[in-house]
Amino acid sequence: MSNYAAPLKDMHFVLRELAGLDRVAALPGFEEASFDVVYAILEEAGKFAAGVLAPINSSGDREGAQWADLGQEKRVTMPAGFGEAYRQFAEAGWNGLSCELDFGGQGLPKLVSAAVQEMWKAANISFSLCPLLTLGAIEALTLVGSPEQKRKYLPNMIAGRWTGTMNLTEPQAGSDLAAVSTRALPQGDGSYRIFGQKIFITYGEHDMAENIVHLVLARTPDAPEGVRGISLFVVPKFMVDEAGNLGARNDVQCVSIEHKLGIHASPTCVMAFGDNGGALGTLVGRENEGLKTMFIMMNAARFAVGLEGLALGEAAYQKALAYARERVQGRAIEGSAASVLIIRHPDIRRMLMLMKSQIEAMRALAYTVAAAHDAALHHADLDERRRSQALVDLMIPVVKGWCTETGNELASLGVQVHGGMGFIEETGAAQYLRDARITTIYEGTTGIQANDLIGRKIAREGGATVKAVIALMREAEAELAAHSGADFAAIRAALGSGIAALAAAAEHVVAHYGDDICGVSVGAVPFLKLMGIVCGGWQMARAALVSQAKLAGGDHDPFYPAKIATARFYADHVLAAAPGLAYTVIHGAPGALALGEEMF
Amino acid sequence: MSNYAAPLKDMHFVLRELAGLDRVAALPGFEEASFDVVYAILEEAGKFAAGVLAPINSSGDREGAQWADLGQEKRVTMPAGFGEAYRQFAEAGWNGLSCELDFGGQGLPKLVSAAVQEMWKAANISFSLCPLLTLGAIEALTLVGSPEQKRKYLPNMIAGRWTGTMNLTEPQAGSDLAAVSTRALPQGDGSYRIFGQKIFITYGEHDMAENIVHLVLARTPDAPEGVRGISLFVVPKFMVDEAGNLGARNDVQCVSIEHKLGIHASPTCVMAFGDNGGALGTLVGRENEGLKTMFIMMNAARFAVGLEGLALGEAAYQKALAYARERVQGRAIEGSAASVLIIRHPDIRRMLMLMKSQIEAMRALAYTVAAAHDAALHHADLDERRRSQALVDLMIPVVKGWCTETGNELASLGVQVHGGMGFIEETGAAQYLRDARITTIYEGTTGIQANDLIGRKIAREGGATVKAVIALMREAEAELAAHSGADFAAIRAALGSGIAALAAAAEHVVAHYGDDICGVSVGAVPFLKLMGIVCGGWQMARAALVSQAKLAGGDHDPFYPAKIATARFYADHVLAAAPGLAYTVIHGAPGALALGEEMF
Repeated sequence: MSNYAAPLKDMHFVLRELAGLDRVAALPGFEEASFDVVYAILEEAGKFAAGVLAPINSSGDREGAQWADLGQEKRVTMPAGFGEAYRQFAEAGWNGLSCELDFGGQGLPKLVSAAVQEMWKAANISFSLCPLLTLGAIEALTLVGSPEQKRKYLPNMIAGRWTGTMNLTEPQAGSDLAAVSTRALPQGDGSYRIFGQKIFITYGEHDMAENIVHLVLARTPDAPEGVRGISLFVVPKFMVDEAGNLGARNDVQCVSIEHKLGIHASPTCVMAFGDNGGALGTLVGRENEGLKTMFIMMNAARFAVGLEGLALGEAAYQKALAYARERVQGRAIEGSAASVLIIRHPDIRRMLMLMKSQIEAMRALAYTVAAAHDAALHHADLDERRRSQALVDLMIPVVKGWCTETGNELASLGVQVHGGMGFIEETGAAQYLRDARITTIYEGTTGIQANDLIGRKIAREGGATVKAVIALMREAEAELAAHSGADFAAIRAALGSGIAALAAAAEHVVAHYGDDICGVSVGAVPFLKLMGIVCGGWQMARAALVSQAKLAGGDHDPFYPAKIATARFYADHVLAAAPGLAYTVIHGAPGALALGEEMF
Repeated sequence: MSNYAAPLKDMHFVLRELAGLDRVAALPGFEEASFDVVYAILEEAGKFAAGVLAPINSSGDREGAQWADLGQEKRVTMPAGFGEAYRQFAEAGWNGLSCELDFGGQGLPKLVSAAVQEMWKAANISFSLCPLLTLGAIEALTLVGSPEQKRKYLPNMIAGRWTGTMNLTEPQAGSDLAAVSTRALPQGDGSYRIFGQKIFITYGEHDMAENIVHLVLARTPDAPEGVRGISLFVVPKFMVDEAGNLGARNDVQCVSIEHKLGIHASPTCVMAFGDNGGALGTLVGRENEGLKTMFIMMNAARFAVGLEGLALGEAAYQKALAYARERVQGRAIEGSAASVLIIRHPDIRRMLMLMKSQIEAMRALAYTVAAAHDAALHHADLDERRRSQALVDLMIPVVKGWCTETGNELASLGVQVHGGMGFIEETGAAQYLRDARITTIYEGTTGIQANDLIGRKIAREGGATVKAVIALMREAEAELAAHSGADFAAIRAALGSGIAALAAAAEHVVAHYGDDICGVSVGAVPFLKLMGIVCGGWQMARAALVSQAKLAGGDHDPFYPAKIATARFYADHVLAAAPGLAYTVIHGAPGALALGEEMF
């Protein structure tokens, strides 16, 4: 069941040829990220993912995290093997891969950690959520924590001895954090007592680490209403003294965990703060600026959730491909004496190609954005930093929204390739579908990503960055024209239509967001999908161009003709949907808004 | 949780205005199916679905069917309430609604039973599978059973005292029944002893009825290989004597049940025939003609599974709509003083409209096909019968494939509307997604429906019937042109492009199926989706035309403007995808077939 193998060959190709690992390694501070070092890291990570995390993915799903009420103390017990896997994970130093060197991190580029994270997520998404949330908390403390907070928490968190959480959501405050009502009362000594209930807290409680460091959104007594009155606090499960030793148990408890469709091994906790006098915490950053910090973390988390879509698609693909290569059923459609492997059937092949091509497109786009993130933070040239940051800001909702929506489709295709066996839980294909279903919801639904994309990321700047991206796409389109043959003609035709569709839709958004925000917002998700599909097509076109150059240079690795064929498939089967989506963006508002609420 | 309400208003509209209930009621034998009688039946069925079946849908999911090994006897226990609900169902006469009058059925049109079945499926799909399989077995016995077999089995099966099954699949014989290896040895007295194992047998064992009548595919000793050597047998769980009394326990046992993604309350059984000397059965119809009979039953079953897609979409929609009308979160995007109901948000509204519009399109198409089925069997004019049968044959794979694929999408949208709550099992939205996932697989996967559509239903007759359907669509398109206003212009534009796309794709299929069967088959599923979308658009256009006529005639029921707006939404958001799908059908083969199997 646990036969995940990291797709190292495609990862290398994307890192080297599309995302520009060499350019990232040339940035100040990343000198050690040479090809050799990075490939060695990926190989080790691949072994860890396949050897330690994948084997407990399906058992973790079956057992699930278990909650128990021991009176005063509520306990969450992780499925068998998770604690030991986490110990190995921390000891091997995986937790601090991309963390800063000062507190024990390895300071590697986001481009490298993106590839490594893809592996954790593909092998065992429930497990991967623990380090994901810890990284978010580390990032917040690194960005705005006081020197004392950093000293107290970061070394143990980066080493993986303590884990972290993000406590945002409350029953009445989900997508809309303005409604947060958890209170923080100052004690006069710089500390606060926190009172309130948080829901949907990933790894809010578990038994894999010595301590859990909660970052909690709450309001101080005189805070203004709405999002401008929310502050961020650090609230450890066990108090920590100056020397870093663990002290008293803090007044925070996991009062229940959710019974969910998927990610069963990831405890989703209801957290009660202050039921016995108040949970002690300290302010992180400045009062009333908690949401700003959270948004920075959230961008990282949104990118990471986008990678989950890619990773679950990859895992589902590997499983479906293995089945298609071993299941014999039916004669070949063109006629055959005996029954054949189902990979011979055109529709099975179409489904596998839908998976393969969209995985490769998502990976290329996501890693390219990760490289831009590295440039945005580390490039010597400030203009280049700004340009890179603008690209990252534009692309984060696309990576999050498009990769997770696509990941769901691919997980469903993975079930379909298995036929009746796909519906049987023991097969394991259905778990990917169940696990993937949360990815289009948490860290902001696809609708929220799409509104962020068309509003803050496009309309607010008059479409400047998206137009710059479209100009880059047109350069790739022009390069395609220099190549002969049916494959490149097909790729160019579909990419050309896709770019035109994206440009027209973007123009519509920029032109009408101000005067018809409701109407334009109807098209937000179709626009996000359109942009994802076309960006993916752009990356696949770049991949085909590189592959053609390799072949022309005498490198006859079959990887290259496969990449060109895959890019062509993507063009004819995925990019082909672009004009229809643009039509919906531009024309879809009146029908959607016509009905009175009572007419549904 | 169980708040399903039968959508009587739209059902009435479709029955009366689109599917032609009056014309069906004019067919010989259906004289009693007047509007009044049918509406009364639907109202009663709606009460039963909402009051008896829906309340045990989510508890049935949680409990599941349970298997126990009691030594010689293996038992399947149904979840609480299922036995009692089934007793009420049978006593109320629902089981025999569309069965022939001779053995106790009510002989109502398929058009009426389609609407009633939609309700059972929406309220409780796991429950609904028991009568569905029973009806299939009744149909086979009615068609080819001997007078003795009919007398012995039909009255009790139609009354619902005994249930039926279809035992087709074996581990090596799923989509490809040629590989069936279960053996039937003649005993010289007209009876046979059956030996073999069947898998995926829906309601193969349960505790809701006195007897279970298995229809089993098996091979006699001298049968030819492949599909021409398969015979059909009736094998009761308890032997039945001449007087219809139950006798000895037959040698058939349920040796395990599957642990599935969904439909937990529907036992999916592994059945062992003949472990203790042979299960006694008799031949149904002629030797070696079992598959022919099965295919007739399978067409009915495929249509019924298509209705499952519609029904689960409707149930998911009702749940999502209720949540969108009660959940307050976030300000209105155009600005609002307070937080608003989420139905106010444009993207939530878009998702609800995607659900509503596609549900209405599926219902219109499915019921229209049901009416054609009635005409095919009962029309006085033989040419009309033939034409109707050709339409039914063409449309069954579309109803099955398109409605189930769409049902899955709608169930997923239902989860999405709920946000984080959608992922929590107690909410109930996720169950529809889990339950729906089997519908694109059983009774022939979408790939198999699509190959049936392009091969047997289109290419084999040179596209005659699909061209006739396209001609009907063009008549509707011309009618749209007679109406002014933006709504009708938008509907006409999208329908026109959709028809052109379908026509081009159909022409491609007809032209190249013979010389490039592999390439054309790559486009089979995209073609099926294209045809479903355009047929749905045609039905929505017809609905809009009828509604406009009602409004012009002075009937100002808000149902009519809502229908027109919904048709327009469908045009701009669903039909808009048609040209892209046609592009894939026509151009998508080379990329899909380029890779050697080792290159994946």
